[in-house]
Amino acid sequence: MRNIRLELEYDGTAYCGWQTQGHRRVARQRKPSIQETLERALARVLGEKIKVFASGRTDAGVHALMQVANFRTDSVIPLEGLRCALNSLLPPDIVVARAKEERPGFHSRFSARSKVYRYTILNRRFPSALLRNTAYFCPYPLDVPLMRREAKALVGRHDFRSFEASGKKGRSSVRRIKRLAISRRGDLLHIDIEADGFLHSMARSICGTLIDIGRGRLAAGSMKKILMARSRAAAGPTAPARGLCLMRVKY
Amino acid sequence: MRNIRLELEYDGTAYCGWQTQGHRRVARQRKPSIQETLERALARVLGEKIKVFASGRTDAGVHALMQVANFRTDSVIPLEGLRCALNSLLPPDIVVARAKEERPGFHSRFSARSKVYRYTILNRRFPSALLRNTAYFCPYPLDVPLMRREAKALVGRHDFRSFEASGKKGRSSVRRIKRLAISRRGDLLHIDIEADGFLHSMARSICGTLIDIGRGRLAAGSMKKILMARSRAAAGPTAPARGLCLMRVKY
Repeated sequence: MRNIRLELEYDGTAYCGWQTQGHRRVARQRKPSIQETLERALARVLGEKIKVFASGRTDAGVHALMQVANFRTDSVIPLEGLRCALNSLLPPDIVVARAKEERPGFHSRFSARSKVYRYTILNRRFPSALLRNTAYFCPYPLDVPLMRREAKALVGRHDFRSFEASGKKGRSSVRRIKRLAISRRGDLLHIDIEADGFLHSMARSICGTLIDIGRGRLAAGSMKKILMARSRAAAGPTAPARGLCLMRVKY
Repeated sequence: MRNIRLELEYDGTAYCGWQTQGHRRVARQRKPSIQETLERALARVLGEKIKVFASGRTDAGVHALMQVANFRTDSVIPLEGLRCALNSLLPPDIVVARAKEERPGFHSRFSARSKVYRYTILNRRFPSALLRNTAYFCPYPLDVPLMRREAKALVGRHDFRSFEASGKKGRSSVRRIKRLAISRRGDLLHIDIEADGFLHSMARSICGTLIDIGRGRLAAGSMKKILMARSRAAAGPTAPARGLCLMRVKY
């Protein structure tokens, strides 16, 4: 059986996230999920029901420049033909950038060594028409050097429970942040976070807290205390989904 | 009477262009124009019917990072209040970046010294989900050095009739291109054109011709011949609107 890996780019604006949540499926759900949209296209191309596994679930409104998903099939379809067929069936806000054959044991999620997320903040007096779905608009001055100093407390192996939206009991909330860099280019501020794994809404909670620090709502030294508190109530708000983009998954 | 200048950013995807065309108004028209959307918001804020004049009409699907429009009013509304009120009424794909008072004789179009357009080409094997409305996807290899050499023929004062979509008889088609630069950054190719004025679809016809040259569909030396021909039939196709953005108007 072939194990095929897809690299996907998507604009998450029109979707309820990577995965359709069980409870949402029951409620009147308006937006489709990326996963079901992709699986439907795969079923049409391959003529069989396909289940895809992603490196992780992105929330509603979160984008991806390179999400990785894999699936198994007995189909002998050439990879380039598969890629082109999928792109012709998928809506233009989901694109298959690459399709390749993987070793049998490869799993998009469990084989991943790290993931890189970027959070984009538009930091100026007025919002942007062109970036309205891909950047979070923050009109307040941000103390970037302070944000950088505070961010240092997060780098390394820590219990990130304070930044976990809905932690399940008994499951570890220890992760390792390999890199957390904050850069400014004109009116745009980028927060790049690389970690061996992300808890639910961890990237956005960290960014929301960093923004609060940058705005002066949280004092210097806050980040260390928030991390130590191991309680979601200690951290700042979850930053809006539209600013977040999964940039890369490393294997 | 006050003469107020607005600087606008917009995503042209959902609009029929800056201005509602007369013949389009008669036909079943689905998309609104930027102008009528702005005038409606102005009427609500100022309580009077307002007519705005832009630096030029952008076509359906063309974007603007800085379009300039002015209007006259007796209202005493403070400029910052006007800007905020407009942004709260306008849809998120149209943003008023700045509002300022101008001298009585200022006219967005007639006072302009030059305009700068940027055409963005995504030049790689697969399309982009995130740039689907703001870049033209070209999967073919492009000979950028050749495009640059050919582009030189256009710089300066010339009759650009070959690049005019619908020339009106008796109206001059002579314009001066002050700068035409082609730059590559990763998969993105930018064509920046500054001119003292643009004929209808001139920027897009030039870009479509440059793309044809880059793809090898037109030989070296073509641009000079096309310019001399003074006939639209001589030039390449009009490049799709989504790649074009009005970057700046200089006064």
